Amino acid sequence: MWGYPEPLARVIEQFMKLPGIGPKTAARLAFHVMSMEETDVLAFAKALQDVKTQLTECSICCNVTEASPCAICQDPRRDKLVICVVQEPKDVMAMERTHEYHGTYHVLHGAISPMEGIGPQDIRIKELVVRVGEGDIDEVILATNPNVEGEATAMYISRLLKPFHVKITRIAHGLPVGGDLEYADEVTLAKALEGRRAL
Amino acid sequence: MWGYPEPLARVIEQFMKLPGIGPKTAARLAFHVMSMEETDVLAFAKALQDVKTQLTECSICCNVTEASPCAICQDPRRDKLVICVVQEPKDVMAMERTHEYHGTYHVLHGAISPMEGIGPQDIRIKELVVRVGEGDIDEVILATNPNVEGEATAMYISRLLKPFHVKITRIAHGLPVGGDLEYADEVTLAKALEGRRAL
Repeated sequence: MWGYPEPLARVIEQFMKLPGIGPKTAARLAFHVMSMEETDVLAFAKALQDVKTQLTECSICCNVTEASPCAICQDPRRDKLVICVVQEPKDVMAMERTHEYHGTYHVLHGAISPMEGIGPQDIRIKELVVRVGEGDIDEVILATNPNVEGEATAMYISRLLKPFHVKITRIAHGLPVGGDLEYADEVTLAKALEGRRAL
Repeated sequence: MWGYPEPLARVIEQFMKLPGIGPKTAARLAFHVMSMEETDVLAFAKALQDVKTQLTECSICCNVTEASPCAICQDPRRDKLVICVVQEPKDVMAMERTHEYHGTYHVLHGAISPMEGIGPQDIRIKELVVRVGEGDIDEVILATNPNVEGEATAMYISRLLKPFHVKITRIAHGLPVGGDLEYADEVTLAKALEGRRAL
């Protein structure tokens, strides 16, 4: 690869496999690694391996965890009657940062996307249906992303859960707090108008 | 770190140590690593280690290499009487891509920068002086970057090499090929004018 010594070319190649990293950034990162202390590089390499070998999925909510069931599913203070369905583990972190939600989660690990060939069987929908079917659930909050794939996934799940007679809700669409009406796109603005509430 | 399981938090932290990678990108990369095949992650980890353990500096030109002296310094077809001085190993690759240069190199591994506390003793200037002092050099081409640090470094080296009576040249400043006069900054344009040649 462009005449670099083989070990350097190999690490550049590896960095290029990461999302959003092109050849120039990969080369910059590789040169940085070369200039790092050896112990730091070893720690980096070990961290990469550990993330594969030490993490598993929670047998209840499918979130990534070191030990299954995960800390949230094991926490007696969390309301087990409410399930918030999100696409990715990082969405759980985002919800937790609000400090406003005290129920449990279900992580789908993706959204239905015919364009990318991702069908309902490719994400953790079956696990959710089993969980709801086993009973004692009051409400399922669908918190998938507010885009085409997220909406389709929410629609699909809500139809699938109909027979179980649980309350199914969708997080609100509207203007982001601190945002500017002027800069809001028309779809968001229409949704914000539609979802208006009495004061 | 933000409630992520420890192995995940650790790999995010490691990615954040790389230049230009903030918390959001680091998290995205870490989740990507988690979704990679285990063999691919192991290959990535090994590539990182190898770049530290298998690479060394060429005893002649200070470029990074698997075996010292490097392939260029050992190549009998390269003109050993000419040395092109560059700041970084990647600058050697850039010069090689032109296919126009057939001499040898000297890699400084940086440039003099009082702002960042990098003095002449922190880069491979001493090695260059020794090399020129040992004789049989016709020309030293200073190809450090066309910015403040690169210019200062070129100036410093040219003064240091004066006593050896070798020809010292500096790569030309001017308009980039394919560039647009309109968009050129005034310093570049002034340099281009100053360096004009008869047709």
